[in-house]
Amino acid sequence: MGNARLQALRNNMKKEGVDVYYLNTSDYHMSEYVPEYFKTIAYFSYFTGSLATLLVTLNDAFIFVDGRYHNQADKQCLKNGVKVIKLGLKGSLEPIDFIKKYFANAVVGIDGKRTSMAFGKQLEDNHIAIKSIDLYSDIIENRAPLSSDRIYELSEEFTGLSRKKKIELITHCLGNKCHIVSNLESIAYLLNLRSSDILYTPVFLAYLVILDKKIYLFVDDKRFDETTLNKLHEDGVILFRYDEFYSFLANVVDKNIIIDENKVNYEIFNCIKDNNTVICNRSIIEDMKSIKNDVEQANIRLAHIYDGVAMLRFLMWLDNVDKSQYNEYQIARMIDKSRLNYKAFDLSFSSIVSYNENAAIIHYSPSKENSKQLDNHGILLMDTGGQYLYGTTDITRTVALGEVEPEVKKAFTLVLKSMFNISELKFIKGLSGNQIDVLARQDLWAHGYDYRHGTGHGVGYALSVHEGPPNIRWMHTEVKTEEVELKNGMVFSDEPGVYLDNKFGIRCENLLLCKNDYENEYGQFMKFETLTLVPFDLNLIDMNYMDDKTIKALNNYHEKVYITLLPYLNDTEAKYLKYLTRKI
Amino acid sequence: MGNARLQALRNNMKKEGVDVYYLNTSDYHMSEYVPEYFKTIAYFSYFTGSLATLLVTLNDAFIFVDGRYHNQADKQCLKNGVKVIKLGLKGSLEPIDFIKKYFANAVVGIDGKRTSMAFGKQLEDNHIAIKSIDLYSDIIENRAPLSSDRIYELSEEFTGLSRKKKIELITHCLGNKCHIVSNLESIAYLLNLRSSDILYTPVFLAYLVILDKKIYLFVDDKRFDETTLNKLHEDGVILFRYDEFYSFLANVVDKNIIIDENKVNYEIFNCIKDNNTVICNRSIIEDMKSIKNDVEQANIRLAHIYDGVAMLRFLMWLDNVDKSQYNEYQIARMIDKSRLNYKAFDLSFSSIVSYNENAAIIHYSPSKENSKQLDNHGILLMDTGGQYLYGTTDITRTVALGEVEPEVKKAFTLVLKSMFNISELKFIKGLSGNQIDVLARQDLWAHGYDYRHGTGHGVGYALSVHEGPPNIRWMHTEVKTEEVELKNGMVFSDEPGVYLDNKFGIRCENLLLCKNDYENEYGQFMKFETLTLVPFDLNLIDMNYMDDKTIKALNNYHEKVYITLLPYLNDTEAKYLKYLTRKI
Repeated sequence: MGNARLQALRNNMKKEGVDVYYLNTSDYHMSEYVPEYFKTIAYFSYFTGSLATLLVTLNDAFIFVDGRYHNQADKQCLKNGVKVIKLGLKGSLEPIDFIKKYFANAVVGIDGKRTSMAFGKQLEDNHIAIKSIDLYSDIIENRAPLSSDRIYELSEEFTGLSRKKKIELITHCLGNKCHIVSNLESIAYLLNLRSSDILYTPVFLAYLVILDKKIYLFVDDKRFDETTLNKLHEDGVILFRYDEFYSFLANVVDKNIIIDENKVNYEIFNCIKDNNTVICNRSIIEDMKSIKNDVEQANIRLAHIYDGVAMLRFLMWLDNVDKSQYNEYQIARMIDKSRLNYKAFDLSFSSIVSYNENAAIIHYSPSKENSKQLDNHGILLMDTGGQYLYGTTDITRTVALGEVEPEVKKAFTLVLKSMFNISELKFIKGLSGNQIDVLARQDLWAHGYDYRHGTGHGVGYALSVHEGPPNIRWMHTEVKTEEVELKNGMVFSDEPGVYLDNKFGIRCENLLLCKNDYENEYGQFMKFETLTLVPFDLNLIDMNYMDDKTIKALNNYHEKVYITLLPYLNDTEAKYLKYLTRKI
Repeated sequence: MGNARLQALRNNMKKEGVDVYYLNTSDYHMSEYVPEYFKTIAYFSYFTGSLATLLVTLNDAFIFVDGRYHNQADKQCLKNGVKVIKLGLKGSLEPIDFIKKYFANAVVGIDGKRTSMAFGKQLEDNHIAIKSIDLYSDIIENRAPLSSDRIYELSEEFTGLSRKKKIELITHCLGNKCHIVSNLESIAYLLNLRSSDILYTPVFLAYLVILDKKIYLFVDDKRFDETTLNKLHEDGVILFRYDEFYSFLANVVDKNIIIDENKVNYEIFNCIKDNNTVICNRSIIEDMKSIKNDVEQANIRLAHIYDGVAMLRFLMWLDNVDKSQYNEYQIARMIDKSRLNYKAFDLSFSSIVSYNENAAIIHYSPSKENSKQLDNHGILLMDTGGQYLYGTTDITRTVALGEVEPEVKKAFTLVLKSMFNISELKFIKGLSGNQIDVLARQDLWAHGYDYRHGTGHGVGYALSVHEGPPNIRWMHTEVKTEEVELKNGMVFSDEPGVYLDNKFGIRCENLLLCKNDYENEYGQFMKFETLTLVPFDLNLIDMNYMDDKTIKALNNYHEKVYITLLPYLNDTEAKYLKYLTRKI
């Protein structure tokens, strides 16, 4: 029957005539990471993972989690009266299909502000009776408050384009269409503002409406200092309180409104659909944001120098200690410290440090309580990144802690080759990430390996480390969604891997900047510039699996790392880097 | 004002109240190649190319041709009162846009039986007044008759699947839906029948309707011998005359009818649209046809042995003659003879033989009157193929006739590498040709080369040499059409090239069979088996552009060619092949 918290929720359900209550891990803005305030599922189910759906009935409760959380959910939820639906296993239904099968005639309660418009419409399309109501807020005790941290301006020296010009651009593109923006990265980008409402992503909770060429921003104005507030007024931004947003929407009438149905909540859709024409489209701001201008590009290069120095200092430390004295969690904190003690203002995500077989779990992140002790052999995978005013980094290195098996070296060498197959590509304008992904996998496929994730994601500028819409990922012809052309100024990760269950995991990741090269009779040629500046572990290379092209690419890369970082290093560091970047 | 033939057409137009008359190079079946009977455009415009659109007004006439025909159309048409619209040049309008711009309020006459349903609907969507009428047949003198050649059966030894089983399969898939098939290859495939109505493609003019699990075939029954006719009856095929098809359609009522709007004509659509529900979909027969069964695969291997022997004999002859004594046309006929004197019953297309700069014209085909004389230097591109009862071949080899420039060798080596990049690929099931094309181009792009055609097309079995729906071709994200997964049993060409205007053209082409390889935890792996068995010219290789992988692939390929062809050769031929296939 479940725990006391669930019982309280069920009492609310009975009062309101709700048969099934739907909860997810989202905030009001469909964010990837969310403020503490929104960790509702953790309160009711005791599940602490980052992504889940909870369905509570009057007698039962079901949590839906993906492969990385199957075991964790079992441990945390079963004893608290919540059954675990393991997505990805044969026969496991997705929440929508579960509802369709078992609750087709029930009243399904949702919090419309935390449910995407797309999901709400799916329920509607299946003729499910929806009641949009918050049944949980009066129950949760000691709830973390929403942030009231200072919202600060990122000046043109960092953004390369003033708020005024960005506003001119977007209002020009929209013409007389209205655009409702709820995505936090898009708002922060457009207004050149940042804050710290969400761990690892320097955004702030706000809504934005572009209506009749005016910008309406919904956020508490006490969060700005006076200078910023004045500048916002000067640039024509009209401020309302965060909680005035939904009532404001009632004033939007007879408009063509552009919204992204996966990025706005169902409540927004309900507020506008009757009085306006709704156009479901990706926000133009996302396209603007994905293309980094010249100033941003120059800054990003600097961010990667800082990041490279921080990583080098950590690697030098690691090289000189007895690994058996540390566990994964402690190593992760050492990397974090190295960044935060230098130039980073935050990490860009929770550092992944995984030893040997733990690295085969793709989304593994070590916790203080549950973390593997290292030893002076085997391999360590470290996927980490920093937030800088100069940009956002994301880098994976896999290093030997001592002796390793031949299969590890073979796999590492193939992964390294796969990474360079993308970064060394010259290609013709017009291609999408779906069309080049095969280059990263061909050498792995030739040996029967593959990896169950994309080759690359977009990366924000002092924003989200995972940024759409472009990516590098092949999609099955049957599930294919919209594709985005690879364009001059886009930044991608390039991160192939090999993961052998219960054995080891390897990933090599550099960030790449997509750039125009020369033009000839065939069209505009494009290339990638590698941004990341951290050496690869030469001890893991098996020359039997290298080819001339990759050797050349690796040596060139290492020379670039050495030359670029040198001015920032002391003599000991420089000597160590020289050794790490030696020619093979 | 044009020629006398056009004037006669205009007289008919005036009588019928038609302002603009639209003619194209199609037959009733939207075929790639058409019978002589349908060469209407040649009659009125004197243009002899294979693809064009003619628009005749009361005072003017315009012919629309693509890049390969710009010069030819100028020469043939201008003096006959027809203006040439050169498609692909800036500002040149496609016929549909030309009509929209200049004849929006005119009555446009078309022959609905020779206009695709898709084009007819485009006219309708643009509110163009259409009059479907044949205004040309009473004018054309000495018109070639439609074929009455014998239609013969391809036995199960060749097809691997009886007509009865194919019919069972298609009627099972369709359920109670009706399917109208006008595509000649699909009809020939489904019924295991062949004839010679169209040059190079052994099909026959017919329509086919699948209705209430019955098969109706519209073709003159005098074209079968008695045995075949009896077998058709036994298998439940109901025969009507070719000209009874359109009146038959009036009996199809209250059905869901599947048609492919690009493969049926506008007249068919008009006959059925009012009484039925039209479902526009690719024919299931095309998908069946694209996957070659085990018997077909074994036969195709044999076809390529025969083709390899014929090509080898030709290459040996060429090696021993003074090239300056021959022109392109004569060489083409020597290749044709070598095939037809051995095992081929026809060619699979008009042989392309092009010397030096002529090879830079991708669709060049030498004519008797206009053909370049060879010499004992430079390179010769030969793209040729044969029709066998055992399958259809298509092969391109580029060979040195003597000394060649270093750039030629560089380009040839890169093209060869590009070809092997596809054929050596191991990949995971689920990919489409759009996603692997980049592998063939990466080494060319790295040197600023590209080619303006797809990397590969599907190939029929004793049918059309260009067979859809699958192909190997990247599509721009903005123009992308439906993609087809690469599947076990599909046959593709693999034909990258380099074409430098006024200098030279190079293409290397092998046919590949797509096959399942092993399965492991990542899924089903796939690979290609090379079918073509003809050596590449080692004199054209520049080792500076080779890598170990390509050298290995080439040596393995040449060894396979030698071993496989050996039993079919006499001592001189064997010795010559051994030399051609020597290890590098």
